Amino acid sequence: MRVDEYEIIDLLKRSAGRLPNGFLAIGDDVAVIPSGSGRLVLKSDMLVAKTDVPPGMTWRQASRKSVAACVSDFAAKGVSPRAFLASIGIPGTLSKADLRSFAGGFRDATREWGVPFVGGDTNEADEVVIDCLMAGFADRIVERSGARPGELVVVSGEFGGASAGLKMLLEGAAADRSFGRRVLEKVYMPSPPLKTGLAVSRYLSSSMDSSDGLAICLHTIAEMSGVGIRLDSLPFESGMESFASTNGYAVSDLVLYGGEEYELVGTIGKDLIQVAKRAASSVGGKLLVIGETTDETGGVNLKGEEIGRVGWVHLRGP
Amino acid sequence: MRVDEYEIIDLLKRSAGRLPNGFLAIGDDVAVIPSGSGRLVLKSDMLVAKTDVPPGMTWRQASRKSVAACVSDFAAKGVSPRAFLASIGIPGTLSKADLRSFAGGFRDATREWGVPFVGGDTNEADEVVIDCLMAGFADRIVERSGARPGELVVVSGEFGGASAGLKMLLEGAAADRSFGRRVLEKVYMPSPPLKTGLAVSRYLSSSMDSSDGLAICLHTIAEMSGVGIRLDSLPFESGMESFASTNGYAVSDLVLYGGEEYELVGTIGKDLIQVAKRAASSVGGKLLVIGETTDETGGVNLKGEEIGRVGWVHLRGP
Repeated sequence: MRVDEYEIIDLLKRSAGRLPNGFLAIGDDVAVIPSGSGRLVLKSDMLVAKTDVPPGMTWRQASRKSVAACVSDFAAKGVSPRAFLASIGIPGTLSKADLRSFAGGFRDATREWGVPFVGGDTNEADEVVIDCLMAGFADRIVERSGARPGELVVVSGEFGGASAGLKMLLEGAAADRSFGRRVLEKVYMPSPPLKTGLAVSRYLSSSMDSSDGLAICLHTIAEMSGVGIRLDSLPFESGMESFASTNGYAVSDLVLYGGEEYELVGTIGKDLIQVAKRAASSVGGKLLVIGETTDETGGVNLKGEEIGRVGWVHLRGP
Repeated sequence: MRVDEYEIIDLLKRSAGRLPNGFLAIGDDVAVIPSGSGRLVLKSDMLVAKTDVPPGMTWRQASRKSVAACVSDFAAKGVSPRAFLASIGIPGTLSKADLRSFAGGFRDATREWGVPFVGGDTNEADEVVIDCLMAGFADRIVERSGARPGELVVVSGEFGGASAGLKMLLEGAAADRSFGRRVLEKVYMPSPPLKTGLAVSRYLSSSMDSSDGLAICLHTIAEMSGVGIRLDSLPFESGMESFASTNGYAVSDLVLYGGEEYELVGTIGKDLIQVAKRAASSVGGKLLVIGETTDETGGVNLKGEEIGRVGWVHLRGP
């Protein structure tokens, strides 16, 4: 895009002006609006076929993915989703079977995350566009800006899998059967850590959804919180090193600069890590410690080496 | 669209299944979700440039219009909008000036309807797509299904103006200067009757936003309420008859089967009409009585002549 996405967001933020008291300023994963004694949490996420639906993904998986993207933000904020709407734009060339497939993905989402599909809007468009809108209520949400120096940096799972899967689909990268199956599943059926997010959010000082990539996510938390981040290790799955070397990729590129990965990235006081880990495993999830926050504001490094502030621009890669 | 929009909505409704208690079933203007002692009201409306942005409309007017469409549904339900989000898809060819224009339309909407712009999502897409999500709270909303026989049918303004404006833009219809200016304003700067809706909703038994056209709107209220509707007159502005005869259109087609008109269409008990009219005029609005509800379920007629259940399919016309 010739005008950078961040410039656009900045323009829109400025057009929004100063929000009333109690609203969360634009720039976090979700919008927060005061609501009686609690807070209404809203999120919209638009999926555009050309950039967000990789080869081989069914329409059912695509509509489910549009909901998954919102669920991921709710997971990162520790908020239980209450309902979703979907506005869809579809070309007149789609068949009834395609539309049934679409509808099936919304039904899957309802079953999987227990969130009713309550409405939306349908339109004719040149390409498939699905905008999912999710709503929930919370007393407290974990913001991106709450990290303090001397805390641990945690993630809810390994990274690089979706990136490896996209390399297979878009660049013909080779993978052994079991690794290939695992990473393609991450691409086609992303599984945001909703239960983990709800179980651990009370312990986190900051948190963010990782769908723009791990590096950009760490940088954003660091900048918004005014801390530095020092990573000790990169969280990746078994098989990643072999996949990377076979295909001539760097593991760190796959892990740090990939995207489309729906994990929670957060920070937590050292005294709370054991109880939070237990809370995560009690719901079948996990929290991996990958580093610490420091008082060197802004930067992110891995064992002394600076990590670039590079994000994932959809399927075009880093 | 080869698969009819109503078939799509039906498929999606079935995929949503039975909603939990307290939720409003899909098929009204807005979604309603129980929220503590009140109700959360949500609406999404997607604007697609190809079909919803007529020639001569600026991006600023287009983004404002995407919000106006949601405001119109809130007006019809008698709910004060509390915040909106916007997900946008834009081609990489748009300039920074275009984007500033976009942002300006959201700012206009915030000022005009007093509703903060709290977030959204930006994406690259082949054509401009804007999905507006609006949220508000209400104790009660006026549903489409509440009309009873023997009530009055009311509208918040005249019809046919936007339709005439679109005929000028798309078919080169001729209009005198003052009429032309007036109807083009309706196309470019739609003005949903929010104050009127908030002032009169407590008196209405049913209500619906008219953006799919007056005829389809009357049919929908009649069907969902199990009543018939007998119109005494068609609500149109001065100059409409002359415009229609000059260009070879039927006034009734412009008024009944046009679309993109943001008025409230509702029903009200005869004993409440005077107080409701006064409430409307106290906020600078109006309520026009155009007919009555009957016990002949389903049909809509004008002085005995059946009115077709025909809706507006965006810019392609009736």
